[in-house]
Amino acid sequence: MGDASAKPRGRDIGIPFEGDPGPLNAITDVSGVEVGYTTLIRGEGALRVGEGPVRTGVTVILPRGRNDREPVLCSYFAFNGMGEVAGALAVAESGRLSGPIGITNTHSAGTVRDALVAWSIREGVPGFWHLPVVGETFDGYLNDIDGMHVREEHVFAAIDSATSGYIAEGNVGGGTGMIMHGFKGGTGTASRIVRHADREYRVGVLVQGNTGTRAELRVAGAPVGMELLDYGSPDRGHKPATKSIIIVVATDAPLDPHYLERLAKRPVLGMGRLGNTGHDTSGDIFVAFSTAAPGTREHLEEPEYGFPKLPLIGRGLGAMSDEERNAPSLMLSLLFQATVEATEEAIVNALVAAEDMRGRDDRLVVAIPHDGLRVALRKYNRLVAGP
Amino acid sequence: MGDASAKPRGRDIGIPFEGDPGPLNAITDVSGVEVGYTTLIRGEGALRVGEGPVRTGVTVILPRGRNDREPVLCSYFAFNGMGEVAGALAVAESGRLSGPIGITNTHSAGTVRDALVAWSIREGVPGFWHLPVVGETFDGYLNDIDGMHVREEHVFAAIDSATSGYIAEGNVGGGTGMIMHGFKGGTGTASRIVRHADREYRVGVLVQGNTGTRAELRVAGAPVGMELLDYGSPDRGHKPATKSIIIVVATDAPLDPHYLERLAKRPVLGMGRLGNTGHDTSGDIFVAFSTAAPGTREHLEEPEYGFPKLPLIGRGLGAMSDEERNAPSLMLSLLFQATVEATEEAIVNALVAAEDMRGRDDRLVVAIPHDGLRVALRKYNRLVAGP
Amino acid sequence: MGDASAKPRGRDIGIPFEGDPGPLNAITDVSGVEVGYTTLIRGEGALRVGEGPVRTGVTVILPRGRNDREPVLCSYFAFNGMGEVAGALAVAESGRLSGPIGITNTHSAGTVRDALVAWSIREGVPGFWHLPVVGETFDGYLNDIDGMHVREEHVFAAIDSATSGYIAEGNVGGGTGMIMHGFKGGTGTASRIVRHADREYRVGVLVQGNTGTRAELRVAGAPVGMELLDYGSPDRGHKPATKSIIIVVATDAPLDPHYLERLAKRPVLGMGRLGNTGHDTSGDIFVAFSTAAPGTREHLEEPEYGFPKLPLIGRGLGAMSDEERNAPSLMLSLLFQATVEATEEAIVNALVAAEDMRGRDDRLVVAIPHDGLRVALRKYNRLVAGP
Amino acid sequence: MGDASAKPRGRDIGIPFEGDPGPLNAITDVSGVEVGYTTLIRGEGALRVGEGPVRTGVTVILPRGRNDREPVLCSYFAFNGMGEVAGALAVAESGRLSGPIGITNTHSAGTVRDALVAWSIREGVPGFWHLPVVGETFDGYLNDIDGMHVREEHVFAAIDSATSGYIAEGNVGGGTGMIMHGFKGGTGTASRIVRHADREYRVGVLVQGNTGTRAELRVAGAPVGMELLDYGSPDRGHKPATKSIIIVVATDAPLDPHYLERLAKRPVLGMGRLGNTGHDTSGDIFVAFSTAAPGTREHLEEPEYGFPKLPLIGRGLGAMSDEERNAPSLMLSLLFQATVEATEEAIVNALVAAEDMRGRDDRLVVAIPHDGLRVALRKYNRLVAGP
Repeated sequence: MGDASAKPRGRDIGIPFEGDPGPLNAITDVSGVEVGYTTLIRGEGALRVGEGPVRTGVTVILPRGRNDREPVLCSYFAFNGMGEVAGALAVAESGRLSGPIGITNTHSAGTVRDALVAWSIREGVPGFWHLPVVGETFDGYLNDIDGMHVREEHVFAAIDSATSGYIAEGNVGGGTGMIMHGFKGGTGTASRIVRHADREYRVGVLVQGNTGTRAELRVAGAPVGMELLDYGSPDRGHKPATKSIIIVVATDAPLDPHYLERLAKRPVLGMGRLGNTGHDTSGDIFVAFSTAAPGTREHLEEPEYGFPKLPLIGRGLGAMSDEERNAPSLMLSLLFQATVEATEEAIVNALVAAEDMRGRDDRLVVAIPHDGLRVALRKYNRLVAGP
Repeated sequence: MGDASAKPRGRDIGIPFEGDPGPLNAITDVSGVEVGYTTLIRGEGALRVGEGPVRTGVTVILPRGRNDREPVLCSYFAFNGMGEVAGALAVAESGRLSGPIGITNTHSAGTVRDALVAWSIREGVPGFWHLPVVGETFDGYLNDIDGMHVREEHVFAAIDSATSGYIAEGNVGGGTGMIMHGFKGGTGTASRIVRHADREYRVGVLVQGNTGTRAELRVAGAPVGMELLDYGSPDRGHKPATKSIIIVVATDAPLDPHYLERLAKRPVLGMGRLGNTGHDTSGDIFVAFSTAAPGTREHLEEPEYGFPKLPLIGRGLGAMSDEERNAPSLMLSLLFQATVEATEEAIVNALVAAEDMRGRDDRLVVAIPHDGLRVALRKYNRLVAGP
Repeated sequence: MGDASAKPRGRDIGIPFEGDPGPLNAITDVSGVEVGYTTLIRGEGALRVGEGPVRTGVTVILPRGRNDREPVLCSYFAFNGMGEVAGALAVAESGRLSGPIGITNTHSAGTVRDALVAWSIREGVPGFWHLPVVGETFDGYLNDIDGMHVREEHVFAAIDSATSGYIAEGNVGGGTGMIMHGFKGGTGTASRIVRHADREYRVGVLVQGNTGTRAELRVAGAPVGMELLDYGSPDRGHKPATKSIIIVVATDAPLDPHYLERLAKRPVLGMGRLGNTGHDTSGDIFVAFSTAAPGTREHLEEPEYGFPKLPLIGRGLGAMSDEERNAPSLMLSLLFQATVEATEEAIVNALVAAEDMRGRDDRLVVAIPHDGLRVALRKYNRLVAGP
Repeated sequence: MGDASAKPRGRDIGIPFEGDPGPLNAITDVSGVEVGYTTLIRGEGALRVGEGPVRTGVTVILPRGRNDREPVLCSYFAFNGMGEVAGALAVAESGRLSGPIGITNTHSAGTVRDALVAWSIREGVPGFWHLPVVGETFDGYLNDIDGMHVREEHVFAAIDSATSGYIAEGNVGGGTGMIMHGFKGGTGTASRIVRHADREYRVGVLVQGNTGTRAELRVAGAPVGMELLDYGSPDRGHKPATKSIIIVVATDAPLDPHYLERLAKRPVLGMGRLGNTGHDTSGDIFVAFSTAAPGTREHLEEPEYGFPKLPLIGRGLGAMSDEERNAPSLMLSLLFQATVEATEEAIVNALVAAEDMRGRDDRLVVAIPHDGLRVALRKYNRLVAGP
């Protein structure tokens, strides 16, 4: 990933955001969450399917880390379903998720899905079957996507690299070859801390962003896209792109699947802040999980009909006190607000961290220029001092 | 309601059903549930809109009875949404329901809805706003439905008559003028007791049935509709009807809204047992609630912006032990099975309890003949001795 | 409605918007659409339930005007379902809507719904049953909502007043007593013209807005809410409000119900531009219809079983040419964009057109101050000359 | 597949069904539909993960055959979402499907999905990305499912073997190792011809069945499961199983995605006829497509931003006459009825065609005994002469 830690993030540029971020301002601020990447960049020049150029990768999110086998409570929302999120139906029905979440390119989602099955089997994740969650966005403008370069070993390597600390952004993992709002896109993250009464919860967001046009782009409300319309590719920035965005929301707030389904709807309001207009053929799909319930582990019953033992899936939020469960409407609204704010910042972070990329057929996608971005923000009095 | 208690029910006819019914074999077997009816029958002969003939009414279900202000957890499922269930969206979003459920005819659903609002205000049901659940089916073949004869006072009277004991079936309440499977339809109910390990729960079902063709009707699996195809209206029994069915499922099992949404899907399997083929323009909509959580009462916060105080709606299943919340997959399956069985029996009970009705323009709809039903069941070796 | 035509709108203030509005910049730019209001304002001082003060009303939208009995194709989306939209389930199932749409206060939705049934019967709208669409938002902070002051005659009067021309905004119709983003809210509208290849379509939006906090409010991307945080009610503007917004999208583009469902999702991105964070207990529900298909009228079949004749509902987009039906992905994206833009402007127009209102218990809700708004926009270089 | 054509089907046993089947009584009665299987059976004795015993396979359905690149209109419904159907979200959003549908075991769904992507690339199926539909059910009781024995070449072989004629049932393809209603399950199919006025359409159903308990099984309404409760595995047949069923519905009726979504709900009523009670952890997911619209082919627009050309996806039912599009409500109901009837028969056919199978760890699952089935049907007067 290179010395990614040196790269500026949205706040370093001087972009103002609302709310209180966590210490890392990343999804890993939610205790237990680990993120790992495998980034595949090799080859140049003309596309030769199966050989390259390769500009892709895989991102994995382990909701409880590599060693905790407890499921998390989980739900999803498809704002624009024109994409793949394997496992979405099972998550919605069961309200639970075991094992890692993967994000990759469109044509490798199956490989990553079965690799997560294989990993779950190898690691002894409880359950007789595994229905992993794997999302995707399309990187075929820069990447030899039809060459299907992501392999099982890349998934395992991404899991092995997973960390609960600082995580890279931009051209990394599944986001390596992505394009967003007419600039180089990719992976971004942010977090918020929510406090109310005597309780404190965290919300973390990770996006793999590949959606939006340049003309519609707003940063901190400023019409940055129109200001930079001719940057890099002067005649193209205002034309529609039709891509996708996968957004994962993690929280340690004790939300049951019913509330997680509601939480999973809120990222679209963050997209709205960026000016996104919800283009046709964009797969804008969001997954939300809560790490709060330690009592969701699948137990085993007596054998039935000689069949594999049945998992217990009815487990609720048993390990929390009544106080904790008694989340008021205000707390819910604060969690919703945190999700919107963190989504907005994670998308901006993906843009800011991305770097120019040249890919198949020498196509070049420029990153949003930091100086140009500052100029545009200053023009609209939205540039603040860095932290 | 007349001396309804003398009327035979499905089991009295000798129809075999599966599972263990509760003591009343009715939705009122779920502790706290009360049901009341207002039945409006007056006038004969030619239709004069606004005058009659009137063959309609209103049914109310009070999930916790008249005096308990605690909300229940609730969800719904629209198998075939071609009908009205006011309040459905709010129930799905909040997972909660305060106040009674109403069921009436299609053109009076608004009146009943606002009458329930008025009752909730008068009775001091907590909340600054009220979003009652009111379903409907169409009785315009027999009833002067455009005359809109159901009034606010009929709703109040139905609530005042509500009981937690024996409840009438057939041509009563909202079901008064309904038609089902080519016979007189109406209101029916049944219940099941579910036992597993050391726990015992109840599931109760109430239907307002107005759906299905005669030809497709199966009772206890026997093709009863074909056997009685020419009964009463020989040339018509095999033609499609396109109506609706509202099904309310009550349980004391500690299911959260996520599981109640799943429970609310199961009645369609009970309809399938009757042979129903899911006709176009039929509004087949199901509501499920759990009385288990006593901790769902809406609390009040500090005033916000001078606004009405905010209700607390995040309350989960706090008052139950971990054991209770730890409902295994098997228990869920047993509750699903109970719902299917009780739905099947409640629909049959509606048919069996209904009586011939002559309505507008002297139209006659015959009830399923008990003798003919027995003959048909015997032919297929499905007639059993009564209880 | 007063001399509403003299009131400035968002563009008159100098707020920049994107896209090309229609001639009226209103939902009535979609040919055939008519909008009518009844506004009820009377009484002052302390609340006396049933007497007042009254600050409410009803809005009606006639998709094809008063005299065209053809249904429109229709769908809906509940971003946050904590409200009532009667008829939503039927619209989703049938893909069609006959008769007017109503919008009113929370406790009068039933009355308005049945009044629309009565009007449909009286006017001979085809169909044996009527399932009108009626939305609501909560005006109980200013209005004697429990007094249920909206009556059938007010609905009829709103229909009688409906026009296809200029329509009032702000404190009118169902929006009379609403509050939005910490300022006086209400009714707003806007439209866009979409051109691609040789085709031109219109999208019109009408909102009844009662949602959002002041602190989060962005206008044209500028953080106007924070700039005006202390205006009028200094200690309250930053606190959460939890209300609702009903958004109706009309288009003459030939979209079938499947695409209308997708179109109905896009208003949430417009809300996002305003900074809305999707508060708990807000009923944010959107309805979209297309007037394009003249062939959707319900026909009648032969009587079935002596029952009312069955409507034909399978009619598609028969009257359009293949060219028209062949709407490309780009056209869809442009329609989505138009919906987002028109939603953003309609919400701003509702804020700008609203005026200070004093209601029950002498509560005062201030309108957004036009001068203060200009100052804030100028600070962020987002003030433009009027049209 | 062996000499499968010699195997009796449900009708050969003397089971009565309703409605008119097509000439093959199979999904291939819908013109253009082709079905292919790869069946993997090898090894015996104790489970050694990665080696076997192998009792699995893959089924492919090509909606327009191998050589027609036109998409079909498509939708889906998850009655019980506890399974994987890759591509479901994209089908729901776009209303379209290009390329084959796959069905396999739970742990190979990703491999099959990416193999279909690879096939679509190789064959030049239009589109810059591919989002294939792949369903699964769990065969881990008999099969070394963790060994993940289905490979890309098996998917290609299944496609190469696809036929529009007679197709095998029972222990074939993805259904090889499945269990249903306490007996050996697997693959089954049936069809219906629907005639109304001067139009005639076909509905074909294919199931991969792995769901249900023995005790609840009804065949033609007769309580066959209770009659055969002790057959083969006397102490086990009445216990709950919790599995899955994938049901694919094909039709040549001109239904748009909105109606296909409704059609996709109807198979659950067919499951209800079998007595199914909707067990927890069963993934009961249904896909419906229409081959009627030849005008759905994806066209290409001008390049946008140097990006891959955009597909046109707005194409409706342009190539049909107004008459055809003008499908009345009655026709819809007949198509719904046909779907229910064909689902019922396809499930029975899967049971009847299946044969005893011994798999991992010498586990034996018995097929439903034909003689015992006849005895049970005769007892309930539901045995008819064969065709």
